Amino acid sequence: MRADLLLDSARFVLVCDEQATALPDTSVAIADGRIVAMGPATELRDAIEADRVIDARGHLILPGLVNLHTHLPMTLLRGVAENVDLQGFLSLVWAEEARVMDPEGVELGARLGAVEALLGGTTTALDMYFHPEAAHRGAVSAGLRHVIGPVFFSFPGPDGLSWEQRMEIARAWPEVVRRIGGPYVPVAYMPHAPFTVDIENLSQIAELARETEGIITTHTSENESENRDTLESRGMRPTACLDVSGVLSLQPVLAHGVRLDADDRRVISAAGASVAHCPGSNLKLASGAADIVGYRSDGIRVGLGTDGCSSSNDLDMFAVMRLAANLARLVRDDPAAISAADVVRMATLEGARSLGLGDRLGSVEVGKEADLVLIDARVPHLTPLHDPYTAVVFAAGRSDVRHVLVAGQVVVDDRRVMRVDVDAILAAAQARVGS
Amino acid sequence: MRADLLLDSARFVLVCDEQATALPDTSVAIADGRIVAMGPATELRDAIEADRVIDARGHLILPGLVNLHTHLPMTLLRGVAENVDLQGFLSLVWAEEARVMDPEGVELGARLGAVEALLGGTTTALDMYFHPEAAHRGAVSAGLRHVIGPVFFSFPGPDGLSWEQRMEIARAWPEVVRRIGGPYVPVAYMPHAPFTVDIENLSQIAELARETEGIITTHTSENESENRDTLESRGMRPTACLDVSGVLSLQPVLAHGVRLDADDRRVISAAGASVAHCPGSNLKLASGAADIVGYRSDGIRVGLGTDGCSSSNDLDMFAVMRLAANLARLVRDDPAAISAADVVRMATLEGARSLGLGDRLGSVEVGKEADLVLIDARVPHLTPLHDPYTAVVFAAGRSDVRHVLVAGQVVVDDRRVMRVDVDAILAAAQARVGS
Repeated sequence: MRADLLLDSARFVLVCDEQATALPDTSVAIADGRIVAMGPATELRDAIEADRVIDARGHLILPGLVNLHTHLPMTLLRGVAENVDLQGFLSLVWAEEARVMDPEGVELGARLGAVEALLGGTTTALDMYFHPEAAHRGAVSAGLRHVIGPVFFSFPGPDGLSWEQRMEIARAWPEVVRRIGGPYVPVAYMPHAPFTVDIENLSQIAELARETEGIITTHTSENESENRDTLESRGMRPTACLDVSGVLSLQPVLAHGVRLDADDRRVISAAGASVAHCPGSNLKLASGAADIVGYRSDGIRVGLGTDGCSSSNDLDMFAVMRLAANLARLVRDDPAAISAADVVRMATLEGARSLGLGDRLGSVEVGKEADLVLIDARVPHLTPLHDPYTAVVFAAGRSDVRHVLVAGQVVVDDRRVMRVDVDAILAAAQARVGS
Repeated sequence: MRADLLLDSARFVLVCDEQATALPDTSVAIADGRIVAMGPATELRDAIEADRVIDARGHLILPGLVNLHTHLPMTLLRGVAENVDLQGFLSLVWAEEARVMDPEGVELGARLGAVEALLGGTTTALDMYFHPEAAHRGAVSAGLRHVIGPVFFSFPGPDGLSWEQRMEIARAWPEVVRRIGGPYVPVAYMPHAPFTVDIENLSQIAELARETEGIITTHTSENESENRDTLESRGMRPTACLDVSGVLSLQPVLAHGVRLDADDRRVISAAGASVAHCPGSNLKLASGAADIVGYRSDGIRVGLGTDGCSSSNDLDMFAVMRLAANLARLVRDDPAAISAADVVRMATLEGARSLGLGDRLGSVEVGKEADLVLIDARVPHLTPLHDPYTAVVFAAGRSDVRHVLVAGQVVVDDRRVMRVDVDAILAAAQARVGS
């Protein structure tokens, strides 16, 4: 059998299926962007004729990580707002955004963010930011599977657009995604939050998403003051706004979801919506600790995200996995609150499912698109190696990522980003913020 | 002025003094193991004649990190005990220890741990383990500043020694430290915990430490069940045991200190003892979240530690810094609970002070020993760079460490450990555990 690429003799393949399968001494063959064969290394070496072979001895292969909530262009605002709560944070950040974030800045920031994400093993990101076309162009240029879409506020907002202008941009969005190309992603629409988008406007977005088979993501119950603000301005909690407007029936990705009460959870579970858990940001801004173990037992799908770099302050999904695992143990007062395999699955398959991409992505299985990460485990902090899922969550880090594939293309090769000039991006980013 | 080494033109030197000084475009000159000059890069380039120059452009220089509580040889037990609480953890680990941890295993594990620690920017570790001489030999061989000493139990314990044997080993310990050599460290004595060492025995250790000017470290109030066990067996809480036995007056390092009540805190503060905060281990084992901001305002010195690799599961002090900063925000419900500079100082100067080494180590100042770490900040996740302390805590990681100096010696040079064969250590470690 012919293949474009053979990943030869991985120490373990972490399938990330429900059974938390880990296959020792296994090879993976890729053709036309998909996984076409997987099996014992000795068998595949005979059966596969590949254009390129990557020596995966000593490596772990896992599905590309899915960052389910981020603001990639905000890499440019990394570290500008420190020691403040969410509301103080937003005022500092909004001032700096006005200074640096024109379309050119957004494209640069998204390209920088995509580079950082890919180097750390993230292959798919659900992004949200102004000037989504510029952001999409920047992130796709580095090779990231980049889900973004128009942002909505019921008031002019930092980008100064009227509601009519927003809807016009939104109706044209599917065409923009087609034109820019890049790895397959769904069309997406991004109401900022129920406290900034009123219920009528939310309904209009839901209608558009239904017509175009798009997905929706929005900030939901990030902290108590957001809940209070929403209750005051809309007469109901954020989740209820999403419910009555029809957004919730489209199974949106609810960013943060730190402060969901029992009613919220019941409604979210019934609708089949997902929560994008961002523990790094939530702790740093003292928003609280989402009870993801409780959410999961309520039947809510939970994926993981970093949030933007002005609150997190990086895009390290390995740090997020470890923190999610540790924080769940604290919140539940139970050292067995969640298994390492469940955490890795939240960062991969559950993330992909949240984006409606569960059939294409999120696990290492024949037929799926080859979004894959190769971790070099021949390092002190991963030695000795017992259960590979435990190693990934509690000891591995972004620096162990050696190769990254998106849709079968090697976008990070031996730690080098292949499609863009990283040094030039770093210089441009530092110059743009003027420090 | 002559120097052995010039670190030329660092982007920032993080002094880690009380003022959180960060010096831009600064060079550091080192001779005979000490910092002999520090100042603007242009000035030092003219003033210093150095045998070697390291180009530090784009780098951050910070003091070597002090891991204030670990069990280095337990690298060999990484990942063997998962999803269990502290007591379940101890039974799994003690069984595996009996299998692999003879003196040869301990030396190998400590050498592996020292390599991992150094590669991640840790220059000093307060270690605790059986067969301390073997552990010390292993860790010193890699170049680590390694503080360890005899472990005490009032019962035979996993190493099967009687109390008389323990005291005999302890009396001979200062001579062992002298004989093995290595960078300067204090003599240390290590009663396991007040629930495993009775008060009379604690008094004997205190007396020995006083005679030999040694330091003491012990586990203290790691979780509620430890507090209960101590109360039952000794009739008082762990801190009270240390107080009445005279240990506390020697300003010991109290490992964990998760569950300290108001009385404990008052007594610890009055005595000038330190807490080694190990948030990664504490969360993973669901021991709880120490209120370090409260401890600090009570006047208790707080340093940071990883704990052993069977509970943490690595020796990553950057992960610990980030978690300590984030967890403090959650515990205090305050996004300004503790500054990044305070966290870096806990991991450096406060750690050094806790070991009685505050005059020698822990900050980048002329006259101090040159235990230094150079971080390459020319990477996507550290770009753009604003406040360097914030960057170190919330975005940097162990993989950014490029050079590490201990007492002026370059023990990690361009990411390579210089004194031992890392590949051979990894192979031996994997072979020893038999997986």
